[in-house]
Amino acid sequence: MSVFTKNNSGFQNQAQLTRRRLLAYLGAGTAAVTASGFPAAYADGGELLPMRKGAARMLLHFNENSLGMSPKATRAAQQVVASAGNRYADDAVAELTVMLAAKHRVPADWVVLGNGSTEVLKSIVTMAANAGGTLVEPTPTFGAVQDYAKAEGMPVIPVLVNTDFTTNLGALRQAANQIKGPVLINICNPNNPTGTICNDEALRAWVTNAPKNQLFLLDEAYVDYAALNPRYKSLLPLVRKGQENLIIARTFSKVYGMAGMRVGYGIAAPETTALLKPFTMSYNLSAAGVAAAMASLEDTEFYEHSLNSNAEAKTTLVKALDQLGLDYIPASTNFLLHRIRGPVADYQRRMKANGILVGRRMTAEDGWNRISIGTPSEMKVFAKTLHAFREKEWV
Amino acid sequence: MSVFTKNNSGFQNQAQLTRRRLLAYLGAGTAAVTASGFPAAYADGGELLPMRKGAARMLLHFNENSLGMSPKATRAAQQVVASAGNRYADDAVAELTVMLAAKHRVPADWVVLGNGSTEVLKSIVTMAANAGGTLVEPTPTFGAVQDYAKAEGMPVIPVLVNTDFTTNLGALRQAANQIKGPVLINICNPNNPTGTICNDEALRAWVTNAPKNQLFLLDEAYVDYAALNPRYKSLLPLVRKGQENLIIARTFSKVYGMAGMRVGYGIAAPETTALLKPFTMSYNLSAAGVAAAMASLEDTEFYEHSLNSNAEAKTTLVKALDQLGLDYIPASTNFLLHRIRGPVADYQRRMKANGILVGRRMTAEDGWNRISIGTPSEMKVFAKTLHAFREKEWV
Repeated sequence: MSVFTKNNSGFQNQAQLTRRRLLAYLGAGTAAVTASGFPAAYADGGELLPMRKGAARMLLHFNENSLGMSPKATRAAQQVVASAGNRYADDAVAELTVMLAAKHRVPADWVVLGNGSTEVLKSIVTMAANAGGTLVEPTPTFGAVQDYAKAEGMPVIPVLVNTDFTTNLGALRQAANQIKGPVLINICNPNNPTGTICNDEALRAWVTNAPKNQLFLLDEAYVDYAALNPRYKSLLPLVRKGQENLIIARTFSKVYGMAGMRVGYGIAAPETTALLKPFTMSYNLSAAGVAAAMASLEDTEFYEHSLNSNAEAKTTLVKALDQLGLDYIPASTNFLLHRIRGPVADYQRRMKANGILVGRRMTAEDGWNRISIGTPSEMKVFAKTLHAFREKEWV
Repeated sequence: MSVFTKNNSGFQNQAQLTRRRLLAYLGAGTAAVTASGFPAAYADGGELLPMRKGAARMLLHFNENSLGMSPKATRAAQQVVASAGNRYADDAVAELTVMLAAKHRVPADWVVLGNGSTEVLKSIVTMAANAGGTLVEPTPTFGAVQDYAKAEGMPVIPVLVNTDFTTNLGALRQAANQIKGPVLINICNPNNPTGTICNDEALRAWVTNAPKNQLFLLDEAYVDYAALNPRYKSLLPLVRKGQENLIIARTFSKVYGMAGMRVGYGIAAPETTALLKPFTMSYNLSAAGVAAAMASLEDTEFYEHSLNSNAEAKTTLVKALDQLGLDYIPASTNFLLHRIRGPVADYQRRMKANGILVGRRMTAEDGWNRISIGTPSEMKVFAKTLHAFREKEWV
């Protein structure tokens, strides 16, 4: 009660501030930013480079796709917002499930749609926690699975990656084999934030010979980028053969540029999807997300453009890192882990002062930064900024 | 593997069918329906009334809002799909949280946003299941909570409503008091599918005097309609006073017409939201949903229009039921439970044959149907159809 009484006078101000921010969010106004186009905080500390003054903001911190989504997906979502924003999308979800099943050449009951792949990850964790399971995963990796596990009180065993940042499959297997009860093994392949891919032979040998108490969650969020690497193999063919100890998670957030639309899915043998489905939410997808996903699957032109754009942008980025002699981990993804010579916190702050949002610290050793690969033109600007940072001796 | 091999040839056809359905879904084609505007199945069985031949389809089965959403919300969502469909919406989610906190005059950490209120319900169930809880709820009621509980292996104690379909608070309290461990008491107020409201005094007395092991989930999805009934009281003021054994769930799916956009939230004391938050998903809301919700909160004109439209449509519906002498349960909602004289299955099939989707059987006794209150013009058509059904002796 005292909290309410104390803060009450602030609520009106919060609401007014939010109204301005809503306009800014919609692109209908710039009330929340200064005349230079930068939020006031960016200009603090004298770290704004002349070349970045008034320049466009770059969001390179969440492995989103700077291209946006397919124009066809955008139009489809906009139409459905108007025609069916007031309707639960369950019928459309069933249709999208059939489309995905066709794409991946599995029956429809092998596919489970989620509110982003994060819902698939969460459902698996809840299912495994209820079975008294333990989570084994590399560290660093995408943090959602361990967050969900911790919420459920599920033990988490993190296994440090190798010194070259590749996933240590041998150590993971050893850790998993020491556990008598159910084990959920979470492997993001390619891994995030390292960008590295698993040794296909070793992973496949483990999955196909694993003891009965081991269930594999294989997060293939970056599969489309990785498929360009001849050494990368998805484990989808194993699922197709009916391998029951394996669930593959996929997302529309990356190559399709739909992070804000929340569409992902799992693919597994029906015995395995049946374990999972009771833990997904009812009415889990939005009508707009489903429509955008359907249109994205049809738009092969955008898909190719998205991959080509990322490859071109990556070339620019890698060239700059090479010129500056900054180490990086070869990545099969839309992001790259690279050295920055100094604490990430300083680098992140200075980049932010220049309107560029980069990754936070994600590795045990400081001095590595995960940069999301934006558009080719964004990466040209980023490369120039990195060179300017070198002149300041900031990297 | 055999499943895959057997069905493989069918997948291409499925994909093609889906493409046509996508177009139909987008309103860009009518390939999935016959020339009459009805899916072929509707015309079967000789149950199509002349007056309904070629008439518009009416979706009165899921308590959606036939008005659609606020035009301002539609535009906001469409803009954000184009400008930020590729971006995780977390910053915008934080903004919407602040707006809702201001609206309800609580601090921001008293509000938990969900992918529809269903995520709030699910998070509470998972939290309660992890604590070894038991679910006590009326029957019939909205089915999601018990589905989630059953998935978690959580015991469910359903307590039959009174013969007038009102929630039996006394019996619920008695059932809850017999349980020594944690108890989650799920009360939808107004209840769905009955439309009835709880006795405010009795509910308030129970919540404020409940033993420490009882936690209340109060689903107020229909609060805006119910607030027109002077005997209805939301328990939000109790939450505001810091009552910690109570979580109120709200949704944008009903009065705001945003069922397809997936935005809901919980309101509780911070000690209680803190229990809940670890069980919500990361990146749980879509950018489009958040933008639509923000714009909806601003559009008080649409809000009033939505309430007035429902009231007008309900008057038309109730008049028809009175004329036909069909019993109904007084409802403080956007739906109504009414007698149909005969099995629901027959009624539902005949209505479907006439392009009208109505509720499935939801009550212990057969012969009651839950009808969602559409627009005033839809209810005029529905009333005429009911009269025509009477001539056929179908109701």
